[in-house]
Amino acid sequence: MIRLSQLFLTTLRDDPAEADAVSHRLLLRAGYIRRAGSGLFAWLPLGLRVRRRIEEIVRQEMTAAGAQEVLFPGLLPREPYERTGRWTEYGDGIFRLQDRKGADHLLAPTHEEVFTLLVQDVVSSYKQLPLTIYQIQDKYRDETRPRAGLLRAREFTMKDAYSFDITDEGLAASYQAQRDAYERIFQRLGLDYVIVAADAGAMGGSRSEEFLHPTAIGEDAFVRSASGYAANVEAFTTLVPDAIGFDDAPAAVVHDTPATPTIDTLVAHANEHQPRATPWTAADTLKNVVLRLTHLDGSRELVVVGLPGDREVDEKRAEVAFQPAEVESATEADFAANPGLVKGYIGPWSAAGAVLGEQSTTGIRYLLDPRVVDGTTWLTGANEDGRHVFGLVAGRDFVGDGTVEVASVREGDPAPDGSGPVTIERGMEIGHVFQLGRKYAEALGLQVLDESGRLQTVTMGSYGIGVTRNLAAIVEGHHDDKGIVWPREIAPFDVHVVATGRDEAVFAIAEQLVADIEATGLEVLFDDRAKVSPGVKFGDAELIGVPRVVVVGRGAVEGLGELWDRATGERAEVRLDEVVARLQQG
Amino acid sequence: MIRLSQLFLTTLRDDPAEADAVSHRLLLRAGYIRRAGSGLFAWLPLGLRVRRRIEEIVRQEMTAAGAQEVLFPGLLPREPYERTGRWTEYGDGIFRLQDRKGADHLLAPTHEEVFTLLVQDVVSSYKQLPLTIYQIQDKYRDETRPRAGLLRAREFTMKDAYSFDITDEGLAASYQAQRDAYERIFQRLGLDYVIVAADAGAMGGSRSEEFLHPTAIGEDAFVRSASGYAANVEAFTTLVPDAIGFDDAPAAVVHDTPATPTIDTLVAHANEHQPRATPWTAADTLKNVVLRLTHLDGSRELVVVGLPGDREVDEKRAEVAFQPAEVESATEADFAANPGLVKGYIGPWSAAGAVLGEQSTTGIRYLLDPRVVDGTTWLTGANEDGRHVFGLVAGRDFVGDGTVEVASVREGDPAPDGSGPVTIERGMEIGHVFQLGRKYAEALGLQVLDESGRLQTVTMGSYGIGVTRNLAAIVEGHHDDKGIVWPREIAPFDVHVVATGRDEAVFAIAEQLVADIEATGLEVLFDDRAKVSPGVKFGDAELIGVPRVVVVGRGAVEGLGELWDRATGERAEVRLDEVVARLQQG
Repeated sequence: MIRLSQLFLTTLRDDPAEADAVSHRLLLRAGYIRRAGSGLFAWLPLGLRVRRRIEEIVRQEMTAAGAQEVLFPGLLPREPYERTGRWTEYGDGIFRLQDRKGADHLLAPTHEEVFTLLVQDVVSSYKQLPLTIYQIQDKYRDETRPRAGLLRAREFTMKDAYSFDITDEGLAASYQAQRDAYERIFQRLGLDYVIVAADAGAMGGSRSEEFLHPTAIGEDAFVRSASGYAANVEAFTTLVPDAIGFDDAPAAVVHDTPATPTIDTLVAHANEHQPRATPWTAADTLKNVVLRLTHLDGSRELVVVGLPGDREVDEKRAEVAFQPAEVESATEADFAANPGLVKGYIGPWSAAGAVLGEQSTTGIRYLLDPRVVDGTTWLTGANEDGRHVFGLVAGRDFVGDGTVEVASVREGDPAPDGSGPVTIERGMEIGHVFQLGRKYAEALGLQVLDESGRLQTVTMGSYGIGVTRNLAAIVEGHHDDKGIVWPREIAPFDVHVVATGRDEAVFAIAEQLVADIEATGLEVLFDDRAKVSPGVKFGDAELIGVPRVVVVGRGAVEGLGELWDRATGERAEVRLDEVVARLQQG
Repeated sequence: MIRLSQLFLTTLRDDPAEADAVSHRLLLRAGYIRRAGSGLFAWLPLGLRVRRRIEEIVRQEMTAAGAQEVLFPGLLPREPYERTGRWTEYGDGIFRLQDRKGADHLLAPTHEEVFTLLVQDVVSSYKQLPLTIYQIQDKYRDETRPRAGLLRAREFTMKDAYSFDITDEGLAASYQAQRDAYERIFQRLGLDYVIVAADAGAMGGSRSEEFLHPTAIGEDAFVRSASGYAANVEAFTTLVPDAIGFDDAPAAVVHDTPATPTIDTLVAHANEHQPRATPWTAADTLKNVVLRLTHLDGSRELVVVGLPGDREVDEKRAEVAFQPAEVESATEADFAANPGLVKGYIGPWSAAGAVLGEQSTTGIRYLLDPRVVDGTTWLTGANEDGRHVFGLVAGRDFVGDGTVEVASVREGDPAPDGSGPVTIERGMEIGHVFQLGRKYAEALGLQVLDESGRLQTVTMGSYGIGVTRNLAAIVEGHHDDKGIVWPREIAPFDVHVVATGRDEAVFAIAEQLVADIEATGLEVLFDDRAKVSPGVKFGDAELIGVPRVVVVGRGAVEGLGELWDRATGERAEVRLDEVVARLQQG
C-alpha cells in the first residue's frame, strides 16, 4: 500500500505549456513523468510502476516465445557499426562521442551489430540454434525535433530482440514467433493495432511489418483495403496496369504553350487551344520532377521522375525509394548548371530523340512512375521553353531508365494484391518486425557449423517494441476529459481507496479496508490525506486513472461506501463488507 | 526451469587473456558477462539473473527504509551541472557530447543536480519532507584505465539515493536510515564490509562514510584501530601532539653539509660530522616538498609542505587535501623559475628570517604537517646550496602558513580518537553515504516553506551502492579454484540438477525431480544435455556456482542420487524422494 500523503507526487491543475500531445499533457499533470531536458524524461514513482508492468508483460511474452534475456550497454564503440556501414548511414540521427583517448563511440539506437558479435562469441554450432535473445534497454536518437513527450523522445526504452537461424524457413518461424508474441503483448496492453507491410530496405532485410496503433496524431500514414491488405504508405506498391497497344496511336505533336510552367496552367491552355471531347485534366499530363540525391559517399546526383500530373512526389516514399541516399528538391543552381532541364517544360528524353531539346542531358537518370506503362499517352514538356508535346506515347516515343515508387498514394487507389480500393489512415508505430537475412552476419562474419560440418552464414531477424512509447500510446487511447483511464493490466495500482472528511473513525475504517483488499493480492493506492477536500481527492483519482476507486466517507460508520469504475464512469453505493468480494469478481 | 541444452551460454575452459581480476575471469569463464568494448559489458542470461536478484534486494531495503523509486535518463543537459560547478570539476572523468544543435550534454556519473531540480518541481512545503528518492540506473565514467572487469568499468549500474530535509537533525536521521539499509543490504549480499570515515570534500558535504569490502585487490587503503576507529587513508587525521616548551632550547646553528640533497645523505652526514648521543634519524629531519597545484580556473601555484623526513607525501591524501585543485610534483622548470627554492636544501621561510636565503620566495605558501607543533626541533634545509640548519625550533624560528594532511599514514600511527594504534588494510568501495548539506540546494535554489511559512533551503544527503560492482565484489569473496560459489540469496538459480549418462529413464526421473523441486518455489537450472560427459557437466556446475547441486545418474533407477553443497564441498548420497524435503530444510 502506498499512501498518497507520502507519495512523491504532485498533480497539476493546469496543462503544462510544454505538452504538445494528450499523453504528454496527462502524464505530466498526473505526476507520472517530468522533463529532464529536451526529449529527456524523469520517471516519478507512479510512472515507473506502469513502466515496470509493461516491461513485465513484454518479458513474460518473450519467455513464452522462447526468447532469452540479455543486456547491452547504451554506450558502444564505433567499430562494429563501422563494419556494417551504419556508423556512416546513421548520419545526424545518433549521438556520437569520443572518450578521453579520442576513440569514437555512439549511444546505440539499435543493437544488431553487437548482438551478432555476441552470438558469434557464444554459438559455434547449428545445435545451439534457433536462438532468439532480447533486451529491455534504454536507447538514444538525436531527433531533429523531439516532441509529444514520450512519443518522440531522445532517450527511450525498447525491447529489442534478435533471432538467429541457419535456414530461411527457420528465420520465417522465428519471425512468426515474435510476430505472434507482439500480437499477444498489444492485446494485453489494450492497444489497438494494425499490422502493415513496411519497407525493409533501411535495415537491409527482406521482409518487414510494422504494428501501427491507429490514431489521428500518428506520424505514419498507412493504407488498407477492406479485405485485409495493409501497408504503410512507404511500402505501398502500385497495381501496375496492363500495357496498351499503340499501333493506331497518332503521332505526337509539339505545340507552343507559352506561360504554362505548371500543370494547372498547362491543362487550362490545352482545354482552350487544343480542346477535345473529354476535357484535359491533370491526369492526362506527365509531370517531370527533378530531385537531387546525396549519396552516402557525399556525391550528388540529379534524377528526373516522370509521374502523372495529378500526383505529387511523396517525400517519405521518395526517401525510401532512394535510400540510403538523401533526397531533396533540385535547386535553382541545379537548373542553372543543367540547361537541358527547362524548368516548367521538362519532357522525357530517353526516347528516340524527337522531343529532346538541343542541350545535352547526358548522365541524368530518367525514372518513371509504374503507371506509365507502354501505350499510355501523355501531354508533357517538350524540353523547350514555352512548348509542350501532345500525344506522346510511352514505349513508342520514350522509355524510362527504370521505374520508381515515389508518387503520392490516394484513397481509392487499388491495393497491389487486387483486394480492392484502399483507405488512408494515420497510425503510430508501436512495434516492428524485420527479417534481416544475412546482411549483418555476412558483414560481421557470423557463421556456424551445420550438420555436415560446413560453415554456414546465419540468417537473422530483428524485432522491436517501444516500452516508453507504448506507455504513451496507451494513454492516447485510454483517457477522457478528466484524466487517464488505465487498462487493468498496466495500471499503477489495482484499486484507489479515497477516505474523505475529517472523522478519524472513517479513516480507520478505510485503513482496515485497504488492508483487507491488499490481503487478496491487489495493490492499493490509499488517499489518506488530511485537510484535502473530497473534490480535490476525486479529481486526483480521475486524473491518475486507477481502474477502480473505493470512496470511504461519512457513510462508512454505517458500513457504506461507493465503488467507482473509472472506465465506465459507473458509481454505485456498496456495503464496505462486500467491497473485497466485488473487487475480486472483477 | 531453464534447460542448459537451450541456455544462451558457453563456458570457457581457459582463462581469457583480457581478465585481470578473479571476478572478471570467473564471470567470463562461467558465461555471465562478455566484453562489449573497453570497460563495457554485455550481460548474458545467467549474469542478468544475478544482477536482478541484487537489484531486488536493494529495492526491498530501500522500500523498507521509506525511499521511493524514480528513474532519470543517463543523458543529461549541461545546464544543471554548470550551475553547481561540477561540469568543470569533473574534468576528463566524464563522457561529454553535443547534440545536433551543438548543445552540451553529459552521460551522468551521479545525479545530485537533477534530483534537486526534480524535488524543487514536486515539493513546496515542509509537509512533504523528509523525502528520500532513489533510482537503480546505468552510470558512466570515462576511466583513465578501465580494468578488473566490472570492478572498474565505464558503464556501471548504481543505486543512488538522495534525501531531502529541512533540519540538520532530519538529515542525520535520513542518513542513518540509509546507512542502516546499507548494512542490511551487505549482510544479505554476503559481503563483508567495514564502515570507514571518508573525506566529504569532493561532494561538498559535511559527513561521509564509505563501506569498504576488505580485500587485497581493493584500490582503497584504510586504517582501523582495534577499538573501532576506521577511516580511509584520505580521511585519516593526525593525532596532534601537545606543544613543547622551547625556552631552554639552544639556538639553531647552520652547518655546511655538502652533497646532502636527500634525507639519507643528510642523516649520514649529521651522524658523521655532528654526532650526538642518540643517532640522527630521518624522523629528526624536516623535509620540505614542493608541490604544484593546478586550480579549477587553470591557474597554477607552488606550495611547499614541511613534514617529518621519515614520511612521504601520500598522493591520494594530497589530492584530497588540495581538492579541487590538481596536485603534481614540482618540475625542474618550477625550480628554475624560483631560485629561492634551493633543491635539496629547502628550509622553512615564514620564520623570523634567520634561515631564509637571499632569494625571495614571496607568494609561495608554506604548509606544515600537523606533527610539527610548537617546540619541536628539526634538522632542515638552510635555503642555501650545501647547507642545513640544526636545532631549528617550530614556533620560535619558523611558523607555517597553515597545516595540511598529506603525510603518509603508517601502521602503528595513533588513531585520532585516542583509540590506539592503527593497522592499514586494503578495501574495495562498495557503498558510500554522504551528508551533502545545503550546497546543491543553494546552488539550484531548492527551498520549501517551513511551518511558519518562511522559505528554507533544504539540506540533502546522497547515498550510492554499485550494483554491478558489488556483483563482482561478491565473486571476489565467494569462489574457489573450481569456480564461483554464490551466496544463496543472489545465486542465479536455487538448485542445479545434473542428469548424467545416456539412459532415457534417468533423464525422465531427473525431469520429474526438477518439476517437484520447482513446485516448492525453488528455481532450477537443469543440465539436460545429451552427449556431454559427466565430467564436463560437473565442471560446469562448479564453475557456474549454484549453491546446491543434485546429481541424477545411474543410481536413479534405484531411487538414489547425490546432493552437493557447493560452498562446503560436501557430497552425500540421497534418496531422490527425499531431495525436495532436504532442499527445503535448507
